[in-house]
Amino acid sequence: VAYRPRKSTYPLISVEEALNIVLQDANILGTEMVHFKKSIGRILAEDVFAKDPLPPFPASIKDGYAVLASDGDGMRLVAGDSTAGDVPKNKVMPGYCVRINTGAPLPSGADAVIQVEDTLLERGSEDGREELEIKIMTVPKPGQDIRPVGSDIAKGEMILSKGQNLGPAELGLLATVGVTSILCYQQPIVGVMSTGNELVEPTEDLQEGKIRDSNRTTLISQIEEHGYHVIDLGIAKDTPDAVLALFKQALQSVDVIVTSGGVSMGEKDLLKHVLETDLKANIKFGRVFMKPGKPTAFATIEYNNKKHIFFGLPGNPVSSIVTCNLYVIPALAKMSGNPLHQRTIVKAKLEKSVYLDPRPEYHRVVLQWLHDDPVPVASSTGNQISSRLLSMRTANALLMLPSKNRRAADDGEGLSRRRHDYRSFVIS
Amino acid sequence: VAYRPRKSTYPLISVEEALNIVLQDANILGTEMVHFKKSIGRILAEDVFAKDPLPPFPASIKDGYAVLASDGDGMRLVAGDSTAGDVPKNKVMPGYCVRINTGAPLPSGADAVIQVEDTLLERGSEDGREELEIKIMTVPKPGQDIRPVGSDIAKGEMILSKGQNLGPAELGLLATVGVTSILCYQQPIVGVMSTGNELVEPTEDLQEGKIRDSNRTTLISQIEEHGYHVIDLGIAKDTPDAVLALFKQALQSVDVIVTSGGVSMGEKDLLKHVLETDLKANIKFGRVFMKPGKPTAFATIEYNNKKHIFFGLPGNPVSSIVTCNLYVIPALAKMSGNPLHQRTIVKAKLEKSVYLDPRPEYHRVVLQWLHDDPVPVASSTGNQISSRLLSMRTANALLMLPSKNRRAADDGEGLSRRRHDYRSFVIS
Ligand SMILES: [Mg+2]
Ligand SMILES: [Mg+2]
Repeated sequence: VAYRPRKSTYPLISVEEALNIVLQDANILGTEMVHFKKSIGRILAEDVFAKDPLPPFPASIKDGYAVLASDGDGMRLVAGDSTAGDVPKNKVMPGYCVRINTGAPLPSGADAVIQVEDTLLERGSEDGREELEIKIMTVPKPGQDIRPVGSDIAKGEMILSKGQNLGPAELGLLATVGVTSILCYQQPIVGVMSTGNELVEPTEDLQEGKIRDSNRTTLISQIEEHGYHVIDLGIAKDTPDAVLALFKQALQSVDVIVTSGGVSMGEKDLLKHVLETDLKANIKFGRVFMKPGKPTAFATIEYNNKKHIFFGLPGNPVSSIVTCNLYVIPALAKMSGNPLHQRTIVKAKLEKSVYLDPRPEYHRVVLQWLHDDPVPVASSTGNQISSRLLSMRTANALLMLPSKNRRAADDGEGLSRRRHDYRSFVIS
Repeated sequence: VAYRPRKSTYPLISVEEALNIVLQDANILGTEMVHFKKSIGRILAEDVFAKDPLPPFPASIKDGYAVLASDGDGMRLVAGDSTAGDVPKNKVMPGYCVRINTGAPLPSGADAVIQVEDTLLERGSEDGREELEIKIMTVPKPGQDIRPVGSDIAKGEMILSKGQNLGPAELGLLATVGVTSILCYQQPIVGVMSTGNELVEPTEDLQEGKIRDSNRTTLISQIEEHGYHVIDLGIAKDTPDAVLALFKQALQSVDVIVTSGGVSMGEKDLLKHVLETDLKANIKFGRVFMKPGKPTAFATIEYNNKKHIFFGLPGNPVSSIVTCNLYVIPALAKMSGNPLHQRTIVKAKLEKSVYLDPRPEYHRVVLQWLHDDPVPVASSTGNQISSRLLSMRTANALLMLPSKNRRAADDGEGLSRRRHDYRSFVIS
């Protein structure tokens, strides 16, 4: 105890370096068949082809009449109708037409559709129930208002390709072509744990020296919001035995362990000891040059012949949510097969100038597009101390601020007190 | 049948008008208590206050030593420690210090914390297990590296206000203050139905004249993606009885009915008959001046003394998803109590020039922020015919194009063939 380290033994690495290390170990897990209705947000692991053309028959684009274009405009005798879902019985002969609805199959013989707005009823049956003769007011062109077979989707066309993120439209495409079971990449299962003797459940009253654990709630809901399955590992006490027991239990069922707390210098030996000594883990980094989030740790763990990855996020509420956004979410996306796992970065204007910190800072902001300005405005959420979760309230982006010690032509120290465009990191 | 209308009887209204009408009838449903862990995406219907301060005790920001600032720098005898979760036993007397970890309570007597990096170990116990004396290399200032009681959250502070959208950080705040059950606005239950004799289930093989129903899949997953509960009402045949039976069944359990199909001119009497004659519905509009989506209909239905709203979306796959985005999703957000129910609109550059249509068009695009350009680039997804669901594939925004017949200084006909900034409607 006496000879605890006075300095951290982990080198301070940059955010970029840290993210590269994380992504290198965030490997695709495998594939599995998924029912198309359950595939929202999943990443396709195969190309999907259409077995039928769409439309499978020449279909009308309008409510109107199927005609022979060569008959020109003028009178037509009405010979029945073609409605959606039916097989048209009548062939269209010269001088005749067939009533047709949008989406209905074109009767044989016909080569054009005239919309009802361009026709007049000339003669009905005596009981008023049937159209007998109409007049066409425009000259039809061959193919007019007809969707040819396969014009939306050709037979055999590749409608979705490997690596596609499946959203509502993509699910609709699967429904259209009748591919109801698809090969997707597996999604990682994530275990989330808090560490600390000071932590109690949110439902508990506070006793002296205790605070309520908020990090599990925040991290779990954030990871779930991105579509991943999370197991709540609970709170570990600050002893190697307690941490090891939860780790061993988690490693049976999860691919990724996310902890918060237990990584500040006074406690580092705890997680380090358990990870390195008990689990033979490979700690890839233990400190990152950023604010908040400096004591973020990352490791790989081989357990039961399976590779797991470990994120040791800081215990401060803001630090844990910021580093979850920066490292955990992109890693989970990459493991899920998503080739677009990097976060979207947009330029924004600052509503008010901010002071720069020696460390590159991830400042919580509300990003808004106002009026007709193409550049969004970023408004700070106030006091950014990493224990103050209120600075995350309503935030929808992280403003990436450079270190004030970095001197470059376009983002040196001089910017610290002026309004300026900074790069901004969109989190939601 | 003979005297079917040659022109639609519904006036063509603008998208703005249509959305205003929809939002006027999209009323908040009521409130209910929700467990905080299940409240992601919900809208708070009450203000939430902190019953305890955070931190509840003066807490250390660093791993280091709790000291008396007035002792200055130099030597200190080490009198035990304060670790997170414990109640410190020792008082800090002049000339003494107490080891302290990040987040641990400050022992009484102390008024500053010195980080371990700024200290040297001078003397340890013979067995090497205890620190006896240290040297402090910097002069402590009173209050240094201490979070005072309530500095993150004051006792009684309003931490969340009515109308707040609950995301991961907001759930974390609820956990922090121990408010585990909250009053939220109720969320609408949505029934989704397709109409058409031509439709078969995605699992079925195609018979002559049939196509697979994709709209239910697309609409259900889109509405679910926004967090709402959906009931799949199935496919109604093109008869008043079939439609009425499904409507009556749905009205028992849903707040909102969304149909697709059955609204083109040849079929309009079907839904109109059922809505107006059988259900005494109030059809608020039946056509909108837009592309795609012209035959979009909206109605209110009083049934069993309860108000329901009805969206009759067009049957073309693209039309239904575009109009769902433009009308249904904002309506559901407003009904759920979200004051920010309008979609985000951003300016974008066009990758290639596009032709304008006589109708204002909602062109499917991929919006990307490239390099350091603050204005995103919109790339068309190709052929925009409303039956071609492939134009929705990978789209993440709708590009709002003005009518080519609108002549104004900044967006007249002349724009149709030039690259230009247009307003773009973000859908995801
Ligand atoms: Mg701790
Ligand atoms: Mg139909």
